Amino acid sequence: MYLKKINSPSDVKALTSAELKALAEEMRAALTKKLSIHGGHCGPNFGMVEATIALHYVFNSPEDKIVFDVSHQSYCHKMLTGRKDAFLYEEHYDDVTGYSCPQESEHDFFTIGHTSTSISLAGGLAKARDLKGGKENIIAVIGDGSLSGGEALEGLDFAGEMTSNFIIVVNDNDMSIAENHGGIYKNLKLLRETNGAAESNLFKAMGLNYTFVKDGNDIDALIKAFQSVKDSSSPVVVHIVTEKGKGLSFAEKNKEQWHWSAPFDPETGSFKFNFDGENYNSVTAEYFLKKMKADKDVCVITSGTPAVSGFSPELRKQAGSQFIDVGIAEEHAVALASGMAKGGAKPFYGVYSSFIQRTFDQLSQDLCINENPVVISVFEASVYGMSDVTHLGIFDIPMISNIPNLVYLAPYTKEEYIAMLDWATEQREHPVAIRVPGGSLVSDGKAVTKDFGKLNKYEITQKGGGVAIIALGSFQGLGIKAAAAIEAKTGVAPTVINPYYITGIDEEMLEGLKAEHGTVITLEDGILDGGFGEKIARFYGSTSMKTINLGLKKEFLDRYNPDDILKANKLTPEQIAELAAE
Amino acid sequence: MYLKKINSPSDVKALTSAELKALAEEMRAALTKKLSIHGGHCGPNFGMVEATIALHYVFNSPEDKIVFDVSHQSYCHKMLTGRKDAFLYEEHYDDVTGYSCPQESEHDFFTIGHTSTSISLAGGLAKARDLKGGKENIIAVIGDGSLSGGEALEGLDFAGEMTSNFIIVVNDNDMSIAENHGGIYKNLKLLRETNGAAESNLFKAMGLNYTFVKDGNDIDALIKAFQSVKDSSSPVVVHIVTEKGKGLSFAEKNKEQWHWSAPFDPETGSFKFNFDGENYNSVTAEYFLKKMKADKDVCVITSGTPAVSGFSPELRKQAGSQFIDVGIAEEHAVALASGMAKGGAKPFYGVYSSFIQRTFDQLSQDLCINENPVVISVFEASVYGMSDVTHLGIFDIPMISNIPNLVYLAPYTKEEYIAMLDWATEQREHPVAIRVPGGSLVSDGKAVTKDFGKLNKYEITQKGGGVAIIALGSFQGLGIKAAAAIEAKTGVAPTVINPYYITGIDEEMLEGLKAEHGTVITLEDGILDGGFGEKIARFYGSTSMKTINLGLKKEFLDRYNPDDILKANKLTPEQIAELAAE
Repeated sequence: MYLKKINSPSDVKALTSAELKALAEEMRAALTKKLSIHGGHCGPNFGMVEATIALHYVFNSPEDKIVFDVSHQSYCHKMLTGRKDAFLYEEHYDDVTGYSCPQESEHDFFTIGHTSTSISLAGGLAKARDLKGGKENIIAVIGDGSLSGGEALEGLDFAGEMTSNFIIVVNDNDMSIAENHGGIYKNLKLLRETNGAAESNLFKAMGLNYTFVKDGNDIDALIKAFQSVKDSSSPVVVHIVTEKGKGLSFAEKNKEQWHWSAPFDPETGSFKFNFDGENYNSVTAEYFLKKMKADKDVCVITSGTPAVSGFSPELRKQAGSQFIDVGIAEEHAVALASGMAKGGAKPFYGVYSSFIQRTFDQLSQDLCINENPVVISVFEASVYGMSDVTHLGIFDIPMISNIPNLVYLAPYTKEEYIAMLDWATEQREHPVAIRVPGGSLVSDGKAVTKDFGKLNKYEITQKGGGVAIIALGSFQGLGIKAAAAIEAKTGVAPTVINPYYITGIDEEMLEGLKAEHGTVITLEDGILDGGFGEKIARFYGSTSMKTINLGLKKEFLDRYNPDDILKANKLTPEQIAELAAE
Repeated sequence: MYLKKINSPSDVKALTSAELKALAEEMRAALTKKLSIHGGHCGPNFGMVEATIALHYVFNSPEDKIVFDVSHQSYCHKMLTGRKDAFLYEEHYDDVTGYSCPQESEHDFFTIGHTSTSISLAGGLAKARDLKGGKENIIAVIGDGSLSGGEALEGLDFAGEMTSNFIIVVNDNDMSIAENHGGIYKNLKLLRETNGAAESNLFKAMGLNYTFVKDGNDIDALIKAFQSVKDSSSPVVVHIVTEKGKGLSFAEKNKEQWHWSAPFDPETGSFKFNFDGENYNSVTAEYFLKKMKADKDVCVITSGTPAVSGFSPELRKQAGSQFIDVGIAEEHAVALASGMAKGGAKPFYGVYSSFIQRTFDQLSQDLCINENPVVISVFEASVYGMSDVTHLGIFDIPMISNIPNLVYLAPYTKEEYIAMLDWATEQREHPVAIRVPGGSLVSDGKAVTKDFGKLNKYEITQKGGGVAIIALGSFQGLGIKAAAAIEAKTGVAPTVINPYYITGIDEEMLEGLKAEHGTVITLEDGILDGGFGEKIARFYGSTSMKTINLGLKKEFLDRYNPDDILKANKLTPEQIAELAAE
């Protein structure tokens, strides 16, 4: 077996063409086994086996520096740079992260998990090299799907003015997570169809040199192409055409579903866990499909992640022109939604907490200054969300909730979520964001009659005394449990409040609490800094009310267990009861 | 005079070709007079006189909808849409804002002040029209300088897939605020040189139709071009070549200086006020020019606003390859800086508070997760900064300071600012941002010996008792005055603290204050929500320390007087003394 002997890229360089091909097959076998047990990004890695081998065969990493966009396709790179054990032996599977990671290896230059960043980051390495008089090659690898992101396009534009070595490998598998959207994909198609010879060439129009590789899964062709650009003294795009999921038959056939996959049976491709239960993605799709049919002004927008709003290819077909995928382009998505609302439509944008970070200025300027009635659902915004350092859902409260004119709502149950969608979609006064609860979906079947248009009116879930617990969104359940723990300890039932509104304070209710409460505890499912609880602490700052803000510490967590993190931040019912008693 | 009779676009349509030309001259005369007295965006408006006339001659605003990018070129549009008085009569000059404004006119669809947004916003209007079955024309106007911004490029890509009417007027004056940077400008140059006939065409490569107007200051040619695309059923770019500042000789000659101008003598072009005094822009340039000469790793980055770091064309020439203008591309700027720092360089990025909003995700992901030693100065971050609703400098504390791993510093004096630059540029541990003080530059000549590497250590400026005032950055002066007012009132001198660090709490010092203080007052030059003071309120929440957080209310202010706003937020020394006594 060749893979077992690969301890660094120099071991790759020692292999013959035939041996490299055998290595590729071994890498695919290792990927199949690990991913079937462990889950992970299937499509991107199966497609990049040959290109990664060729890169390491031609270039001299880490002196030559390769930066992988999103880096969810970096498994093969890890195998060839001293980390093969994490793909060969089950007990070592978790030795590596799912993304490039400088703490793991000198061959990784950045921790990357968001798309569209590689050209800019690698451009910085190139500029630093130029200042220092270095001569090494700098290579940015980017998928076609990532090209639609503003940062990538800004990076391409910048690269077009560079006058030194800079190699951009465009890995074109004709797919984003879902199908691509945008005018540039017509050009990529034309280039594929003309073997790169078309006069109309986006990359050349941006000032870059250009080279085309018809079969991006052919190691020999790739080696030849990379050798031809190695040590070039001007920026060049190497456009390689690969097949997403190549070598894993299920992933070749259903590319969208197999972009990322949970553990699966390697023989049949059936998933080992059943995800068919109700969740907020499916609830959202169901809600909007019904709404769309009744109202042609309703429109669902996604920025390259249709699954976040539960829209499978079949449901997208049903929605027709009332479903818009702008490609990976969060900035455009928010501005487009604002424009649509101004034009009288009822746009809804579903987005992950981690990715709404990519459109702060559009939220502030394009949307909130203009007060257009856009509805945004923020998914995986929770300690129970994605746990990779690049995909955390614990920062959106400070990011979003301090923008004026925005109403940021936090439901606890499915019924509250739907009632909020109902109100938000029909009102014409405010931009509204809804923080979709993390953890298991809670459905209590209760009708929600609250008028969300009366802003910043909190509700008392349980009336008591002594201690009041203001438990935001998904932590309402924790608040109720903590109240029980406090009552068990003291004999006095605390008051529990569901604040619903992250963006404002119910001053009347907070004033009213003073009569029968000495302590207010706030609970929020995100970092404390800049968050919800601090606003309550400010409100009571000059009074004798004791306030305790509980939430997460401001830090970049990575691959954590939620229960550990909750405990470390004193967020178990028992810990809260202890604190209340102090 | 024609202009006096223009009350709506229909009055424009009634004029002959010769009359339209006379109107253009009258508009230039009005611009010259108003701008010489009032100041404003010269270059963009003088260049767009003819194009604006032609747009309103051909299209039927407001049914047809025109969206101006940045909208600093919308003065001519305002003159032709019922707002001529604001340009003809001095007493009405302030009746209109400097940007498009829906509150002023049904011909304005959005409040816009940041670049690169028009295609996406107008794209939303077009999509809403399509859902509703409308037939009106939707027109986005965008300058060449704004095209490099990620949102604009995302918008172009989206437009390339549209299948209905959408007209993008690219106003190409071969200038951003300063000269353009990026590969796409090579293509615009080629298109200008070939009268739009070059095979290599960025817009066509993005899937758009294309039309070229060689003289974008020729009303007849523009009318013909706009008529040819009116009611088109697919997206089209109309590339018009205009002269920035056309008709104002000084502005034609020195385009960068006259992009925006203070009041000036219309005969000589000399400015009525002298701006030659020391300011933070010049201090920054002076500091880095010296630093660069001694160290080739030091590099200053700007995203299209070189003046923010004090770099005039002459100083940029001196800096050579150690000065990088990435064009209007804030996302790329931050990622590039992170890459450069990783590559061993010492990058500095100077940016306005209002524009750093455009790169939140890059700060978080590309920079802070990776902990690369980039130094960022945030300018005009103050109630004393720019006062247009789209350019406020009061939101950066919640935006920036809640990102983990970032050190956000707040100096009060020039000496502190330079000491922070010194430390930040040489250390290799942290991404560092510095909040450049607003208001008049304070220089006390004192040597600063503080070691900023010992994070979150506050300093006591004045030791007292009873009340402690923690006065952040530019509000340190206010804190000292408030302390004097309190002492005058109570006979007891308060303690005054300069916290320096926005991103962390000096727990030891705060604990220590408990012994001799009953009240802590925080002062910050920005909104309170998600800001600095709330962190102090949280810290003391469960103690008997009374905390009073003073700063600005969370709201979008517009064209305000800072003194009024300070008073409204209880931020005068006397008001603070009153609050302390309560």
